[in-house]
Amino acid sequence: MEVSLIRYTPEPELTVAAAARLCYSPDQVDELLEGLTLTKARKLINQLRQMGHLSPFEHASFTFGIAGVSRALSHQLVRHRIASYSQQSQRYVAFSNLEVVVPPTIAAKPEAQDKFDAAIAAIAEAYQSLLELVPAEDARYVLPNACKTNLVMTMNARSLLNFFTLRCCTRAQWEIRELAWRMLDLVSEVAPSLFADAGPNCWKDIGCQEGAMTCGDPPSRIR
Amino acid sequence: MEVSLIRYTPEPELTVAAAARLCYSPDQVDELLEGLTLTKARKLINQLRQMGHLSPFEHASFTFGIAGVSRALSHQLVRHRIASYSQQSQRYVAFSNLEVVVPPTIAAKPEAQDKFDAAIAAIAEAYQSLLELVPAEDARYVLPNACKTNLVMTMNARSLLNFFTLRCCTRAQWEIRELAWRMLDLVSEVAPSLFADAGPNCWKDIGCQEGAMTCGDPPSRIR
Amino acid sequence: MEVSLIRYTPEPELTVAAAARLCYSPDQVDELLEGLTLTKARKLINQLRQMGHLSPFEHASFTFGIAGVSRALSHQLVRHRIASYSQQSQRYVAFSNLEVVVPPTIAAKPEAQDKFDAAIAAIAEAYQSLLELVPAEDARYVLPNACKTNLVMTMNARSLLNFFTLRCCTRAQWEIRELAWRMLDLVSEVAPSLFADAGPNCWKDIGCQEGAMTCGDPPSRIR
Amino acid sequence: MEVSLIRYTPEPELTVAAAARLCYSPDQVDELLEGLTLTKARKLINQLRQMGHLSPFEHASFTFGIAGVSRALSHQLVRHRIASYSQQSQRYVAFSNLEVVVPPTIAAKPEAQDKFDAAIAAIAEAYQSLLELVPAEDARYVLPNACKTNLVMTMNARSLLNFFTLRCCTRAQWEIRELAWRMLDLVSEVAPSLFADAGPNCWKDIGCQEGAMTCGDPPSRIR
Repeated sequence: MEVSLIRYTPEPELTVAAAARLCYSPDQVDELLEGLTLTKARKLINQLRQMGHLSPFEHASFTFGIAGVSRALSHQLVRHRIASYSQQSQRYVAFSNLEVVVPPTIAAKPEAQDKFDAAIAAIAEAYQSLLELVPAEDARYVLPNACKTNLVMTMNARSLLNFFTLRCCTRAQWEIRELAWRMLDLVSEVAPSLFADAGPNCWKDIGCQEGAMTCGDPPSRIR
Repeated sequence: MEVSLIRYTPEPELTVAAAARLCYSPDQVDELLEGLTLTKARKLINQLRQMGHLSPFEHASFTFGIAGVSRALSHQLVRHRIASYSQQSQRYVAFSNLEVVVPPTIAAKPEAQDKFDAAIAAIAEAYQSLLELVPAEDARYVLPNACKTNLVMTMNARSLLNFFTLRCCTRAQWEIRELAWRMLDLVSEVAPSLFADAGPNCWKDIGCQEGAMTCGDPPSRIR
Repeated sequence: MEVSLIRYTPEPELTVAAAARLCYSPDQVDELLEGLTLTKARKLINQLRQMGHLSPFEHASFTFGIAGVSRALSHQLVRHRIASYSQQSQRYVAFSNLEVVVPPTIAAKPEAQDKFDAAIAAIAEAYQSLLELVPAEDARYVLPNACKTNLVMTMNARSLLNFFTLRCCTRAQWEIRELAWRMLDLVSEVAPSLFADAGPNCWKDIGCQEGAMTCGDPPSRIR
Repeated sequence: MEVSLIRYTPEPELTVAAAARLCYSPDQVDELLEGLTLTKARKLINQLRQMGHLSPFEHASFTFGIAGVSRALSHQLVRHRIASYSQQSQRYVAFSNLEVVVPPTIAAKPEAQDKFDAAIAAIAEAYQSLLELVPAEDARYVLPNACKTNLVMTMNARSLLNFFTLRCCTRAQWEIRELAWRMLDLVSEVAPSLFADAGPNCWKDIGCQEGAMTCGDPPSRIR
């Protein structure tokens, strides 16, 4: 998996703070930006997070390049609807080489790895044969969830906070959890105050909300 | 593929027409509904469609049960973001029997069908073995796009019109196109005026908007 | 203020429960609906709420007729984006009689009521004069926030839960809070399990999330 | 009205083009960005627009500071749901000086201007009196649609294209039409290819879609 932050709203923390101050001020946004230091902005953002007033967070957008993740992951990912996606097409791209994601539980057991490899080899052979007989968009019906795919995804900071709450949690599937943590690392570097308490609910005052489905583990920054 | 319309807003045409009239009337919606016949409602709805004033169409929602479609289809389907989905999970459901969708181009060529069947058999065997070694959510990495899945989907009439424009078009992938037509048949029965001109743009005054990617065929109700 | 529930998805609780069960079942939605009693559905819905798994709640939609609320309220209301609105237009409807909402704090003080009445009378007179000189869409620039308006609004149950959390809270503005409670009463009658713990956070395990802005009052069902 | 473009996704055209190319390429987005010139990006974007393949346009976001517009405008503006807003609050900000937007049709007729001015003066006086008797959130019930307000708004390029289609049209209300044109000028400077044919439908191949409500005027860049 390769994850990069390829674009984002310049000065995301100042942008969010100026928008938030506008709501309570007679001044225009240009005037608000002039008098705003990063220290003041971060203090205000912390207050907004604590009160759950997250709408100003929407003014900061983040665009990620995501490569080498499985189609199992991407099918889950695109369920997040307050976001924008461009994904490599299996209809239009014919793959000469079948690259796959191997789940760690499979990699850890030679017997499982063997079964997995044999299936992938059979699929790869069938796919190449089918490419000569039918359109790529139909040949791909044999391709597995493990197939690697590439995406560009854009989410604003508020939608990202929701994404991190759900997908950094140990109850999320391991691959999308890894993606979520990688994304959180990237955005935390460029806009630390926006994401200061991002992650699963168990870290926060609110605590685990998974009810009977809780993992039961103590909250921890260990991923 | 099995598609059924399991729920929808009662009297969808009257609901949409009453909402539309409210915008231009001093009356309340209850009064508007009282004086409204189906004939009047349909006449108004036709005018709304012709002017592209589609926001009142959002008040009518339609819920579909969709069974036996491929994961290739469902991955495309859930890209439509103004909609609600509940989908059978491959993380939580372990399948004892691997059911697949066979593309017609493959079914039409014995050589392709043989390759396809062999790959599916190899996958099925590997999947059952893996289920004994690793969690179902990891065993599924070998499962193919062809795997059948079930969904419940809810869309309002405005979002459906957009869906039909894109997915009834010959440029859409064959399986989701079949789904789109089946859905259109179902909603047309219960709310004909809302969907009177639904379908690809080539049928409408607006004409094909696919530019250089046009299929070039004359507009036709043949699917 | 007059609020009525004019349409909703038939059997909303069964619909939500069947969609939720589909995620974890090999069965189709039609089969799931067959074997489902209201008692079983409600038990499942309670579990979903406790785990915060609210996506199946989106399959149940509710359409309200709202009359006699102020434009101050409607401006706040339409900020809720996961919803559909049709609103009486001040561009196209010319009002012969200016109807207004009077805030209770104003009604409670004769001095305030007098000031208010005088301003409304001046506005009404200016508006009628302007209607003869300029288009209605420009004459309305003198109309006050207090002006009554009518709307049709559709929201699904998940979006409604968010709406009730924010707008039933004592920190919400009094008029939209009254609307929220009236809506909650209406949907609770037809789908009690979906809205069993709906309302401000202070009622729930999660507790008040308003931070320093908390009202500080003990949680109460008194509105 | 003062409109400024305060933030936007850096290199919006390159971002959109790289995302679009990813869909049809085996390469990762970082590789795609490396080989991409502005000339190539713009050529591709023109093709995307002509085919209506607008989803990659969503990766470019634009944040505007908007000051001195009426509450009549802002009530219409926030109806665009694929967007983010922070708006100056009339609940929390008490205005010592009532600033208003005067419609040109009123400014053009001394008789109308007099009526308007008298009503605004009566409102201003009542509002100041009410501020001493009741909370600001209730005093504002007398404030007119003409009242000036400030907003920060963020929209992505795809949502902006829809906004320009609807709001640059002569059928849109004059004040929001002016805003739309001002916004279009600003984004056209920094991302010309994304907005090359933005504006009302009459300019485009598609032609006017307003049906019987058409203005009937020949398409023109005169605003």
